Amino acid sequence: MRKNLIRALSKRSSSHHVSREVQSSSSDESRKFRMFKWTAISSGLAAFYYLHERSKTEALSKEEILFTADEVSKHNSLESLWVSYKGKVYDVTEFAQAHPGGAKNLLLAAGKDLAPFWGLYQQHSADHVQEILARYCIGKLDPKSVKKSCLKSDKNTAYSNEPERHPAMKINNPTPFNGEPPPSLLLRSFITPNELHFIRNRLPVPEVDIATFTLDVSLPNGNVLPLSIDELKEKFEVIEMPVTLMCAGNRRSEFNAQVKDKKVNGLSWGQCAISTARWKGVLLTDILEHAGISYQECRAKGLVHLRVEGLDAGPDGVGTGASIPLERAFDRSSSVLVAFEMNGEEIPRDHGFPLRLVVPGTVGARNIKWLSKISVSAEESESPTQRRDYKLFGPNVTNVKNIPWEQAPSVQYLPVTSAILEPSTGTKGYAYSGAGNGITRVDISVDGGQTWTQTEIFNENDPYTQKSFAWTLWNFELEIPEDIKEDKIEICIRAIDSNCNTQPEKIDALWNIRGLLNNSWHRIELFVTRQ
Amino acid sequence: MRKNLIRALSKRSSSHHVSREVQSSSSDESRKFRMFKWTAISSGLAAFYYLHERSKTEALSKEEILFTADEVSKHNSLESLWVSYKGKVYDVTEFAQAHPGGAKNLLLAAGKDLAPFWGLYQQHSADHVQEILARYCIGKLDPKSVKKSCLKSDKNTAYSNEPERHPAMKINNPTPFNGEPPPSLLLRSFITPNELHFIRNRLPVPEVDIATFTLDVSLPNGNVLPLSIDELKEKFEVIEMPVTLMCAGNRRSEFNAQVKDKKVNGLSWGQCAISTARWKGVLLTDILEHAGISYQECRAKGLVHLRVEGLDAGPDGVGTGASIPLERAFDRSSSVLVAFEMNGEEIPRDHGFPLRLVVPGTVGARNIKWLSKISVSAEESESPTQRRDYKLFGPNVTNVKNIPWEQAPSVQYLPVTSAILEPSTGTKGYAYSGAGNGITRVDISVDGGQTWTQTEIFNENDPYTQKSFAWTLWNFELEIPEDIKEDKIEICIRAIDSNCNTQPEKIDALWNIRGLLNNSWHRIELFVTRQ
Repeated sequence: MRKNLIRALSKRSSSHHVSREVQSSSSDESRKFRMFKWTAISSGLAAFYYLHERSKTEALSKEEILFTADEVSKHNSLESLWVSYKGKVYDVTEFAQAHPGGAKNLLLAAGKDLAPFWGLYQQHSADHVQEILARYCIGKLDPKSVKKSCLKSDKNTAYSNEPERHPAMKINNPTPFNGEPPPSLLLRSFITPNELHFIRNRLPVPEVDIATFTLDVSLPNGNVLPLSIDELKEKFEVIEMPVTLMCAGNRRSEFNAQVKDKKVNGLSWGQCAISTARWKGVLLTDILEHAGISYQECRAKGLVHLRVEGLDAGPDGVGTGASIPLERAFDRSSSVLVAFEMNGEEIPRDHGFPLRLVVPGTVGARNIKWLSKISVSAEESESPTQRRDYKLFGPNVTNVKNIPWEQAPSVQYLPVTSAILEPSTGTKGYAYSGAGNGITRVDISVDGGQTWTQTEIFNENDPYTQKSFAWTLWNFELEIPEDIKEDKIEICIRAIDSNCNTQPEKIDALWNIRGLLNNSWHRIELFVTRQ
Repeated sequence: MRKNLIRALSKRSSSHHVSREVQSSSSDESRKFRMFKWTAISSGLAAFYYLHERSKTEALSKEEILFTADEVSKHNSLESLWVSYKGKVYDVTEFAQAHPGGAKNLLLAAGKDLAPFWGLYQQHSADHVQEILARYCIGKLDPKSVKKSCLKSDKNTAYSNEPERHPAMKINNPTPFNGEPPPSLLLRSFITPNELHFIRNRLPVPEVDIATFTLDVSLPNGNVLPLSIDELKEKFEVIEMPVTLMCAGNRRSEFNAQVKDKKVNGLSWGQCAISTARWKGVLLTDILEHAGISYQECRAKGLVHLRVEGLDAGPDGVGTGASIPLERAFDRSSSVLVAFEMNGEEIPRDHGFPLRLVVPGTVGARNIKWLSKISVSAEESESPTQRRDYKLFGPNVTNVKNIPWEQAPSVQYLPVTSAILEPSTGTKGYAYSGAGNGITRVDISVDGGQTWTQTEIFNENDPYTQKSFAWTLWNFELEIPEDIKEDKIEICIRAIDSNCNTQPEKIDALWNIRGLLNNSWHRIELFVTRQ
């Protein structure tokens, strides 16, 4: 039997390094290439028992030593992997390879406290897990040394009351907080747990007094109609639906990594500035009708934009704003929600407590958090996120100081995209298209785009219209051609949506000064080592 | 002053050959390349007068010679260019270069009768045009030799009553008739004249007796509600809107021309199986509501498809059918029309007289001509055009005898596409996207896709939503880099729609067994000759 070693290396970051020992099995003559079927063998299991026995006697003797959180945080690699849990510190370096979820997943918690991770993966509450962990205890955690996570700018009082964030989030900017979950966690479920949903804030998270909070709707007569959360729930039909939100900067990091000689402008997001939640709320159109706002009358008066504003006000007192075409606000099939629940809970502070405008299929920036004001207007929102930052230009617009902002429409609905999040023998990822267009097919290539086959897909599309406001997850059992000539292969992924749109091949022609909407084929190189 | 000659050569057909004498003018230092601005100079004008004088005396002496239509049809090139008009035959070979509309347009009528062309371009009704033509008369046309155009299968009685077609149509199949207009004519106006609208028939054009015709709507109680054309006009609000129809096979010919080793299945359409008309009719949803058909009740019963059938019945008596998701039939914003007028006239027989279902934004095949039956059903239409022919598979499905038809949804909405129809100093073309997504930008590259700039675009998009069911026309004043190294350049075009979707770069990954929906960048090579 022939054995090979396969090592996945993302072009963009080291987070995709995986190591698998693999073996060949029966080939399938019906395919274009004769293939070896590669399956992971559980080489970790033997090590599991071996390591248990060896560490058992060492653990207890070190239990009284005191470590600071800072010291723990430095042991964040496979070479030295420490974690803390309920006030104790554990050196699980040797256990990593035996971790049933794989060393890669244990690495997510390296140097950190286990509690939030175990809160997510509740199989760890079993007694035998606690027993195993106890064997690796090396001391106690100094409680004075524990800081709230992500409070990296304590001195900046504006950010002194930020919510706790999941320690596994990749922080693209600490204040305002911009973070995305690690690929392996994002993929675990169709619905993203609230604590792993990507966060893209522009200002400190506002504190909202729910007792006095109202959503203020500007009326045609100049008055304001205030609506409490309770009134929203009582007066209107409540709807819950899965909606994928995506930042227009998702996959931005690929621009600077792959395009030479010019740099895009914006936070360097990976492939995980996208998440899916079940949002519950009421239809915006019902609120507008209740307020006596008529589409026909507004349109006749030239009031063609629906404007909203959040409570995340900067020094000027103006919250982040957005607008959508009024026609869309009134269109029931567009399902624009004023949401008050996210995955069955009050919306977390980071995601807009107590209200968020959810405009399914649009760029994240139109889904205003901490929603507090609604009005109609002849003009788009003056927010820079409406008038400037989220506009798409050609690759010929390269001078950041001279962007013809007014020449492009603001980005609303999103194009079809996809990404590989788990490049291994069981390759996995997501695909998504905006505007309610469901994904109908996800194709994968293991030869850089020369030949293609179809992945297995999972989604909640309407079976007749293929309509969906949520993403599609896909997986594919990776097979390496037996006659592979090089020591690496390039996996490419591309999705096709219900309008038959698909993704462009290369990133070059998609380059734009703001680094928006990179939906080129996502590519990952896998290095193959024969054994 | 430096002079060059630029010659356009399409990769796909010779119809794009153009010849221009061009000269350099001021260069623009602000561009990436130093450019020469190339403008056509009217070298034709001198020839115009020269040719007139020479042919004046020769014409009359030949007036009594008799030619057959067949003989005239053989003189269809720039080397020998004959036309007929009102019973006379003219040799306009020498006039071709002096033709104010260019030799290329005169070539459209080569070997044919001028009447239908002059019907379109009414500038020819001026007296001086008749005088010029008279000078080139070489004889009379034998009236017995004149056949109706496109009746190439007279013997086949099923096709003995086809309508007249415009002689400039490029015939992809004579019976059933499948034809597309020449690129230069298609581009002349935002609205395509009825006689130039592409035609994609599947059977002989039916003869409809308008006196007895009814549209039959199947009712939930099993009865049928017949509606005459007059009733439709009286009972429902009449709507007129510009709608672009496109065959899913548009640009299919590029597959076989560019992809090696495998052939697609279907008629070899060029870039002109797309046209735009102002369709007038009533909303399908109004008819359904009038008939007492409720979306909620249908959906509850699992009746999720709206089925229609045309009168173009084959030997089995079943007309060409189609279905669309019932949700879409009821959605006012989808604007599904039962149309009775096309560009202000009764719908021509080739386009569905007296009624056509117009489903804006969908593939041509769902826009059933000679519409006669409407019903709701738990199943899609059984028509092969619904269950088989218009389905999109990956490039790995190559065996025409073993296509997994049931695994793909039927194509409904269309993806974003564009084409170059006039490759010359004033480059022109169209761009289009389905599902009501307007075009927001059309980019052109003169270096094979390395660098891009924006074309000037014209459309009727809603200014706030960018929504449109019609195409966008674009033009671009072509400039050739002064420092061009090769003797040819490759022009590429790509469009971006209101959902920010754009076109894939290459055709290879779009290859599919049926040759559907080629929306790769359209590419034209231009050969540059320095003088």
